Amino acid sequence: MAGVAPFSDDTPRTPGAGSIAGMVEALRLVDHHCHGVVRAPLERRAFESMLCEAAAPGRWHGSLFDTHVGIAVRRLCAPVLDLAPHAEPDEYLERRAELGVDEVAGRLLRAAGISEFLVDTGFHPEQLTTPDVLAAYAGGTAREVVRLERVAEETIAVCSAGTFAQECRARLGDAARTAIAFKSIAAYRVGLDLAPERPSDAAVFTAAARWASGVAAGKPIRLADETLIRFLIWTAIDLGLPIQFHVGYGDADINLARADPSLLTPLLRATADRGVPIMLLHNYPFHRHAGYLAQVFDHVFVDVGLAVHNVGRGGAARVLAELLELAPFGSVLFSTDAYGLPELFHVSAVRFRDALATVVEEQVARGDWSEDDAMRIARTIGSENATRAYRLYQ
Amino acid sequence: MAGVAPFSDDTPRTPGAGSIAGMVEALRLVDHHCHGVVRAPLERRAFESMLCEAAAPGRWHGSLFDTHVGIAVRRLCAPVLDLAPHAEPDEYLERRAELGVDEVAGRLLRAAGISEFLVDTGFHPEQLTTPDVLAAYAGGTAREVVRLERVAEETIAVCSAGTFAQECRARLGDAARTAIAFKSIAAYRVGLDLAPERPSDAAVFTAAARWASGVAAGKPIRLADETLIRFLIWTAIDLGLPIQFHVGYGDADINLARADPSLLTPLLRATADRGVPIMLLHNYPFHRHAGYLAQVFDHVFVDVGLAVHNVGRGGAARVLAELLELAPFGSVLFSTDAYGLPELFHVSAVRFRDALATVVEEQVARGDWSEDDAMRIARTIGSENATRAYRLYQ
Amino acid sequence: MAGVAPFSDDTPRTPGAGSIAGMVEALRLVDHHCHGVVRAPLERRAFESMLCEAAAPGRWHGSLFDTHVGIAVRRLCAPVLDLAPHAEPDEYLERRAELGVDEVAGRLLRAAGISEFLVDTGFHPEQLTTPDVLAAYAGGTAREVVRLERVAEETIAVCSAGTFAQECRARLGDAARTAIAFKSIAAYRVGLDLAPERPSDAAVFTAAARWASGVAAGKPIRLADETLIRFLIWTAIDLGLPIQFHVGYGDADINLARADPSLLTPLLRATADRGVPIMLLHNYPFHRHAGYLAQVFDHVFVDVGLAVHNVGRGGAARVLAELLELAPFGSVLFSTDAYGLPELFHVSAVRFRDALATVVEEQVARGDWSEDDAMRIARTIGSENATRAYRLYQ
Repeated sequence: MAGVAPFSDDTPRTPGAGSIAGMVEALRLVDHHCHGVVRAPLERRAFESMLCEAAAPGRWHGSLFDTHVGIAVRRLCAPVLDLAPHAEPDEYLERRAELGVDEVAGRLLRAAGISEFLVDTGFHPEQLTTPDVLAAYAGGTAREVVRLERVAEETIAVCSAGTFAQECRARLGDAARTAIAFKSIAAYRVGLDLAPERPSDAAVFTAAARWASGVAAGKPIRLADETLIRFLIWTAIDLGLPIQFHVGYGDADINLARADPSLLTPLLRATADRGVPIMLLHNYPFHRHAGYLAQVFDHVFVDVGLAVHNVGRGGAARVLAELLELAPFGSVLFSTDAYGLPELFHVSAVRFRDALATVVEEQVARGDWSEDDAMRIARTIGSENATRAYRLYQ
Repeated sequence: MAGVAPFSDDTPRTPGAGSIAGMVEALRLVDHHCHGVVRAPLERRAFESMLCEAAAPGRWHGSLFDTHVGIAVRRLCAPVLDLAPHAEPDEYLERRAELGVDEVAGRLLRAAGISEFLVDTGFHPEQLTTPDVLAAYAGGTAREVVRLERVAEETIAVCSAGTFAQECRARLGDAARTAIAFKSIAAYRVGLDLAPERPSDAAVFTAAARWASGVAAGKPIRLADETLIRFLIWTAIDLGLPIQFHVGYGDADINLARADPSLLTPLLRATADRGVPIMLLHNYPFHRHAGYLAQVFDHVFVDVGLAVHNVGRGGAARVLAELLELAPFGSVLFSTDAYGLPELFHVSAVRFRDALATVVEEQVARGDWSEDDAMRIARTIGSENATRAYRLYQ
Repeated sequence: MAGVAPFSDDTPRTPGAGSIAGMVEALRLVDHHCHGVVRAPLERRAFESMLCEAAAPGRWHGSLFDTHVGIAVRRLCAPVLDLAPHAEPDEYLERRAELGVDEVAGRLLRAAGISEFLVDTGFHPEQLTTPDVLAAYAGGTAREVVRLERVAEETIAVCSAGTFAQECRARLGDAARTAIAFKSIAAYRVGLDLAPERPSDAAVFTAAARWASGVAAGKPIRLADETLIRFLIWTAIDLGLPIQFHVGYGDADINLARADPSLLTPLLRATADRGVPIMLLHNYPFHRHAGYLAQVFDHVFVDVGLAVHNVGRGGAARVLAELLELAPFGSVLFSTDAYGLPELFHVSAVRFRDALATVVEEQVARGDWSEDDAMRIARTIGSENATRAYRLYQ
């Protein structure tokens, strides 16, 4: 990694940007939502299928390198692998294969400048590095985020409807001893229009019985029941850990119209006094809605992860600025939502730093904020809000 | 107030901005939607609770001074109180207490450069200055906007279901003699998905009876019935005054998903030929939707009040520009939606002038608009549209 | 037309923009969705009624020249008619009348620099030029886009419920021999919340019988039945031509809340493997939603036509940049959606070129894209994506 400065993006900076950009560049970020990386070597089609939310390159659109994130990998990651910026995709993938997965992951993750990773281990963990391996690449530390729906699916596989609630509570209680947070993918399964009430034991039993009999009849074990998802959420609230929600865009399995964070309003009202932070992940293209929720609900934290590395440099600054229109500065977090490719950690961190520096520098340049305020706010968004909300380092 | 130029924000200007900025600076604005200010002295927590739509500073997000509007108060209002820009919150509040509420309100309201205030007197009026007192601070004039739901609530408290409709019509008729407009908060109570038809007398009676019996049984007097709200709206239309609608974001009581202005489409179609202007207030984050409605419905006027002082300087210019993408220039209004704090009038006016100047100057700088057109359009948005729509000075 | 350079907008350019702007300027665009122009002379009110989506200038908003598109006509089209930029509306209309409709249309359409027009002939074709006449003005070529709902309406007028499905299939099959694509205006008639399944023959018969009996009873022949519209869409899919959908904003007949492209998600999933491109037209203000759909569905193409000429120069660059946040560069198309006025083709083309050049130049200026990539992407968006998706020139 000689010659590659830690978490530098080597892209041109506004002249005179000075100390704020430098401070943001040096920030050790807390990535409060990410996944492991793939250790198997990747052919071009497999690599492209992990670049963005498209399942694979296609007949009509052509290569997925022709997206903001695809070009960003060539621009930002190629130099970390000793290539010239804008290397062609095949040249990049050849060099990647030559260096080997561990070397590539190590270089890119160290370059990202992330010190702490909160890792969702609930989606195809068998294909991905564990949180510890991920953190070791980066020279940082990692904590586990446990996916509620996955725990329920593991439970129903081995118990009856009659014991489901109790068994599930026990498993989540066990998980809470080591996990840093829970996560719900209600948006993917039933949408975010969740009733606010904790479901009754009877309702949970009935729903579990329906699910168990479907599974017994050979249906795949996939939780898509609103009552049971609410049961999981309320069980998690009892356990006191922060709860992350997938919100807004994702892959083709999501229905965007049901992933609008404002649909969560009744549940946010019902949980406002529980002392449990609710983390709204991604949010794009509803990030302004999310900013509103963060303003009026003290326990709501928000980010624009996933979007940040997908939408281009200008897009990232625009989207972060829009999130910050209403969100109190104490409620905004950094996440990559990187999955599979170490490249996504690096692109995400570079783009986030650039967006954050751009937004706060603009305030200072126009005299709207003092430089002290700008520095303080940049630090709080980059790591301190996450440290406080997740009680890291306690 | 010696040394404080009237409605100047003393922030750096683009060099050479010249005459348009100067003209916009000198515009005497019509604030077509605002509230009174609080006369009681305010401790820090009480002050923060009025800064934005959050109920109060909280355990997780920290001080609400760490928002765009909080920093703007320190930046823009501190100099009006003889402090340096960016004064710390406690220093600012100390100086505020030292000067006294009347002196502070007078300085800030005169600095705002608003000549006419249309004041919604329907929300906690007992805590706020009357329209006349507000206007006296500013050296301007004020007119009253009457909240429909409040009139209905005052009516049901003293009459039966059988006389409700008649009594309510009489009260609204009385109000119309002095008020400049009506306002509905349907968005807060039942959402904007209102049926377009005028409800029948029988339907109004049935709904009033249900409400009255709830009240008799001890429920709080709070109108949240779609039929009765439609009855109020159609009664107001008969009276011929403009009707304001809360649209988009507000405090935690609103459900953003039901506050989308496009939900009003059927009602807007049904009222298009009534000769009554409909004012869509705030609109954020649906201000592009509102711009569409303003384009296709001649009787629809729109603003981005409330958002303007909340979203930062760059945000205000962005949001106004987005509103103006589709809204005809003859349909856009200025409002502060300031409530409680005189600071919000000043911040709102400064930010609105800056946004308006930024948007029109950009057109002239690129040669897209002539300077004459730019001047004319800025004036129409700042005051002439409101003068025409509300028939002020007649 | 002496002295008017082909498709030049003669507006000031960023100095040093250089070769990308020049290349974009010279691009021969494919307009994949437009309408014919009016040949009758137009008085001011009639002209204004075609400028934007408002039905006519109105009592409250005043002249529709006071919109971005109105000012753009004075700025961009006046010089093409030998007037000074920013000519007053009456002066412009006088000169327009003096030159005559054919001369005006010829000048403006040649100035637009469009080589290929895909023309929707389904809306008031009796008032508009045919595709061939339109293309002749421009010195280009034209292909016909057939509106599904219109074919159904022509069919029901002459057949019984029992023969409707068969007759409609036959007519669409005939149309497919010469048309380049089909189009659905489901958004206007029933909204985009369409069930994904192909309706059964029995369901089509029942719906056709209901419609036919309404028509027999004297109702206007207007298709607004979800089942029949789905029948048309699936019939079109069987025929293999691309299908365009009106999405997002339009005139006062649309209900924006039902025109959100994410409502199409189930249908997009159901048609993903059919080999038929789906074109989402306009999309504003849901263009970010559309970009998401384009990313996760390979057969989805998107544009921001109609918005581009309505939202001003800065707005067009903003809206295109937002569309490109998630949309793969291979999925984005150009269209004008011009209707009636040749001016709209010119304004749309000028604004689109400016937006495209602005977006890609920004990437190059910051070092994020190579100039080669920028050139390639600009070309693909301006014409090559449409050529591929519609199999033009085969």
